[in-house]
Amino acid sequence: MTQEKDPVMVMLAADKASRAMGIELCAHGDGWAKARMTIREDMVNGHNISHGGMVFSLADTTFACACNSWGPPNVAAECDIVFIAPAYLGDELYAEARLRRSYGRNGIYDATVSRGADVIAEFRGRSYQLRG
Amino acid sequence: MTQEKDPVMVMLAADKASRAMGIELCAHGDGWAKARMTIREDMVNGHNISHGGMVFSLADTTFACACNSWGPPNVAAECDIVFIAPAYLGDELYAEARLRRSYGRNGIYDATVSRGADVIAEFRGRSYQLRG
Amino acid sequence: MTQEKDPVMVMLAADKASRAMGIELCAHGDGWAKARMTIREDMVNGHNISHGGMVFSLADTTFACACNSWGPPNVAAECDIVFIAPAYLGDELYAEARLRRSYGRNGIYDATVSRGADVIAEFRGRSYQLRG
Amino acid sequence: MTQEKDPVMVMLAADKASRAMGIELCAHGDGWAKARMTIREDMVNGHNISHGGMVFSLADTTFACACNSWGPPNVAAECDIVFIAPAYLGDELYAEARLRRSYGRNGIYDATVSRGADVIAEFRGRSYQLRG
Repeated sequence: MTQEKDPVMVMLAADKASRAMGIELCAHGDGWAKARMTIREDMVNGHNISHGGMVFSLADTTFACACNSWGPPNVAAECDIVFIAPAYLGDELYAEARLRRSYGRNGIYDATVSRGADVIAEFRGRSYQLRG
Repeated sequence: MTQEKDPVMVMLAADKASRAMGIELCAHGDGWAKARMTIREDMVNGHNISHGGMVFSLADTTFACACNSWGPPNVAAECDIVFIAPAYLGDELYAEARLRRSYGRNGIYDATVSRGADVIAEFRGRSYQLRG
Repeated sequence: MTQEKDPVMVMLAADKASRAMGIELCAHGDGWAKARMTIREDMVNGHNISHGGMVFSLADTTFACACNSWGPPNVAAECDIVFIAPAYLGDELYAEARLRRSYGRNGIYDATVSRGADVIAEFRGRSYQLRG
Repeated sequence: MTQEKDPVMVMLAADKASRAMGIELCAHGDGWAKARMTIREDMVNGHNISHGGMVFSLADTTFACACNSWGPPNVAAECDIVFIAPAYLGDELYAEARLRRSYGRNGIYDATVSRGADVIAEFRGRSYQLRG
């Protein structure tokens, strides 16, 4: 597949929000994606701990890349995130999302957000495929 | 309670992430909070639809204000969000979070994100009270 | 509406599983239902604490009554339950389910399971309306 | 480990509810368990489709076996189940639960309920370790 036609690259190229947060796609394949983001000054609270929404956003973008890797456009219908450990100012976080199950026009994807060997959050998203 | 001692105001004053997203607290009370945010250019994707992480962030900040209104500091342990309708560039969103149940050091809070009469998302967060 | 045509009564009359658990509908209306169940010997573990599946079943049946109160058949697509306090042998539990939000063919219902003034569990179910 | 001292076998031997539902443990190891159950007449509704609570109960018992395989007693704090396909009267269902992440006294376990090659439900449970 040429990069111009890759639905993930097309989607990300237009995603100003992910770009503003500095989210970068590392790799992706069918039903799978890995991305990274560094926690900046404008992403933390008074204890220099990352806002939960920033950790969620990294997981959500990675999930979107994974569930749109197949072709027809998918949207996030529901997401659940368990916060396991805090992320701090300057941390480089990685998220990896992978299809767990697809059924009809629905998909369940699991994503783990980590900093090196430390797990920061576990995320589960349900996708819904739009009609073409 | 003077504003300087109000734990919600102290927390928000230090929350650079919420400030960077333009989240403003409208009102709050015991176990309850309401906040707003406008969807900016740097919060949308190519279809001018808000990134899910921005909608989540507004709900999450509102939840944090509600669950820290009681005094002892609480953190978000887990959050679930159902995306009901897209939010668009320029939309002014409101989130209102309210305690549903508290048990031991845990709390369950429900938050609704809306744009006027339209519901954008339903959010449920579980809080955990840190030891003083 | 005559009771014969009431979709909730028709559904419950055929629900052998709910009957086997001794679940009784107390009352219901549009998007709302209340039911009860007593924890029997065959519903507990070695500490005479109710199996979580029995508490879930009561909430799930009550949710089914609430989301089928409108007419067109609905099924449970996803359910989440938070266990707040144990229920014991002999406890008479009540569950009350209520619509929180409907959108398209989906609904979000919240149910609380309680024993007198004590809350046993908080349940959230998402329904999906089948095509007629 | 002798079977008498195996905490999973001790727990199951006392679990009258799982026995009443005919749930049988097939195998288990550290952080992992597999169990089965057949959908009986008293577990279905009028369309001979399994009550959701029965599918949940099988997953929940399997999760309990997996999270109590380590020694110190654990309880289910929260469970989420996505219903993917109906199970019918006479179906022999299998559930397999596995630790996804442990942190502090918490654990996240994923369980899949299936009938042969067909997936019936995806379950995620959060466990909490009681103090010894």
